[in-house]
Amino acid sequence: MSWLDEFGERHGAVVGVLASSLAQVERRFSEQIESDLESVRELCARVERYRGKMLRPSLTMLVGMAANGDEPPRDEHVTLGAVVEMIHVATLVHDDVLDEAEVRRQRPTISKLRGNEAAVILGDYLISSAFHLCSSLNDQRVAMRIGEITTRVCEGELLQLHHRQDRDLDEETYFEIIERKTASLIGVACEQGAAFSGASLELQRAMYDFGVRIGVAFQIQDDLLDLLGVERVVGKSLGKDLEKGKLTLPLIHHLAVADAGRRRESLNLLAGLWRGEIAAESDGRPDGPTVVAELTDVRHEVRLALETTGSIAYAAQTAQRAVSEAKERLQTLPPGDARLLLEDLADAVLSRDR
Amino acid sequence: MSWLDEFGERHGAVVGVLASSLAQVERRFSEQIESDLESVRELCARVERYRGKMLRPSLTMLVGMAANGDEPPRDEHVTLGAVVEMIHVATLVHDDVLDEAEVRRQRPTISKLRGNEAAVILGDYLISSAFHLCSSLNDQRVAMRIGEITTRVCEGELLQLHHRQDRDLDEETYFEIIERKTASLIGVACEQGAAFSGASLELQRAMYDFGVRIGVAFQIQDDLLDLLGVERVVGKSLGKDLEKGKLTLPLIHHLAVADAGRRRESLNLLAGLWRGEIAAESDGRPDGPTVVAELTDVRHEVRLALETTGSIAYAAQTAQRAVSEAKERLQTLPPGDARLLLEDLADAVLSRDR
Repeated sequence: MSWLDEFGERHGAVVGVLASSLAQVERRFSEQIESDLESVRELCARVERYRGKMLRPSLTMLVGMAANGDEPPRDEHVTLGAVVEMIHVATLVHDDVLDEAEVRRQRPTISKLRGNEAAVILGDYLISSAFHLCSSLNDQRVAMRIGEITTRVCEGELLQLHHRQDRDLDEETYFEIIERKTASLIGVACEQGAAFSGASLELQRAMYDFGVRIGVAFQIQDDLLDLLGVERVVGKSLGKDLEKGKLTLPLIHHLAVADAGRRRESLNLLAGLWRGEIAAESDGRPDGPTVVAELTDVRHEVRLALETTGSIAYAAQTAQRAVSEAKERLQTLPPGDARLLLEDLADAVLSRDR
Repeated sequence: MSWLDEFGERHGAVVGVLASSLAQVERRFSEQIESDLESVRELCARVERYRGKMLRPSLTMLVGMAANGDEPPRDEHVTLGAVVEMIHVATLVHDDVLDEAEVRRQRPTISKLRGNEAAVILGDYLISSAFHLCSSLNDQRVAMRIGEITTRVCEGELLQLHHRQDRDLDEETYFEIIERKTASLIGVACEQGAAFSGASLELQRAMYDFGVRIGVAFQIQDDLLDLLGVERVVGKSLGKDLEKGKLTLPLIHHLAVADAGRRRESLNLLAGLWRGEIAAESDGRPDGPTVVAELTDVRHEVRLALETTGSIAYAAQTAQRAVSEAKERLQTLPPGDARLLLEDLADAVLSRDR
């Protein structure tokens, strides 16, 4: 796990334990999605490449360690980490169908390579496999929580869909969406990591809150990368939020504080994009609406508009505040090496460029 | 439940108990998918109309009763019935995305009405809700089996997708596909219905086999309706198997036994359809390949071809044999009213026209 390297110097011992636990998570993940059908195996091999930073299992392990005097994670933590990562990968596979994304982790998406149908079923296969693996823990508490949270993730996605191209989307609804669709799964990864270390309900709750705030910061950073990032570095299709009519924090702030003239200009820009007058790339199709600009140009113009109202700084500060609140929650854990690494990890959410 | 009416005369008491249990299943289903978000509630209201014959919960209840001296179903049977129906409805919602179907149960599909994105997430919401409800049973056996079977259903769908437009699809692979994608869920509905009545592992296994054979007969009948049915009666888009390149039993038999000339003609017909030269309806689009025929005409020609090789009769006989085998498995149940109704239900799978 290359991202662990940067922490290696300050957190030697704990990073070593984490790395070996994550290797176990990867094995458990692979074993669970193993199929007797060649055609399924071939798709699963592709999906394994979707695994990236393993943020969620890392949090499960580290919270589990921190709640238990820096003892190594238990076997249940490894299984839980694989369950949460599998659910996460399933949402990525289905998101790429929804977003018509073509690139993910520097590679073509399943939906692009093998069609939306394969991507829909493969996502279902991963969800089913995650629940099957979760049941192997034989623990109703975690099964109920995982079922509750995955339902909540879907609600967040449906709420987001409901507000597509909604120029009047407000901050409150935006936070409702991202807490459900992104942050709640990270929250439960932390909460149940604590639970499997025998933590009190109070500490479990604090760890849920920690994870939710990390998730909020992570999502805001993701939204910023979609606007500001470089596709080659980030490794996935960018500008998708704009194109798909998902208003994110910088734009919501901008539309709320811009003067009337500037607001009208920005809304016109979005309206053109949503009418399909702007192409993701110039594909020279003779039919369809006249393409008057390209998505990269729109991203550039939107960035300029956002600068005029300080909206990028506003979003970055909001993410920073979420990280600070997350780190406060960490103080409820007993002090130790795992907690120190969690603090550094929380900061790293903001500095990532991919 | 209107389909129960026809059984009312012969099976008075048992039909009454079944009807009231199914009403409980419907309530549990609705309560489980209840959301605090208005936009989610609105979609769920639509999906509730997808519930049709409630075949799977009916089998759970009746097997549960038959295995327990015709005692009414227990609360666990009701929950299990709702879980299995919810998984079934989730597969319907996702199938309609895959099939680009426009009509289901006489109404426009979710994917047609609200877009593929809403349909993908709504299906995920239903799968998650089903696993959450299943966890409420606090029974690892059923949770593991449900997780295993939903994974198997996805494998069947992926295998089917892998063999799209495969002119050489053989019967063995066809049965592998339908046992996984359709029959296994019906099997587990019966198996776990028996389990919650305290049945022996041997009886549970026999009930799984019973359900699988019912499922195979059901799927073959579905395939026949796709070729022979009247859309107004069946209540869903027809000809989809042909259009989407899913070879079903009649066609597999036909291509295997037809003489070389007839086989070539049939393959040419399919090749034209798959090249997109045939429209689902004449939509007068100026672009795209030249439409040389309509799907209804192709269905007619395929039917004529199938008649020449007796392939429709062959498929019907195969379904009949599956029903006979299913009824043999019923003999492992203690005799009683619920068992008698199961026998009649098994026959009814073949006579349905929708």
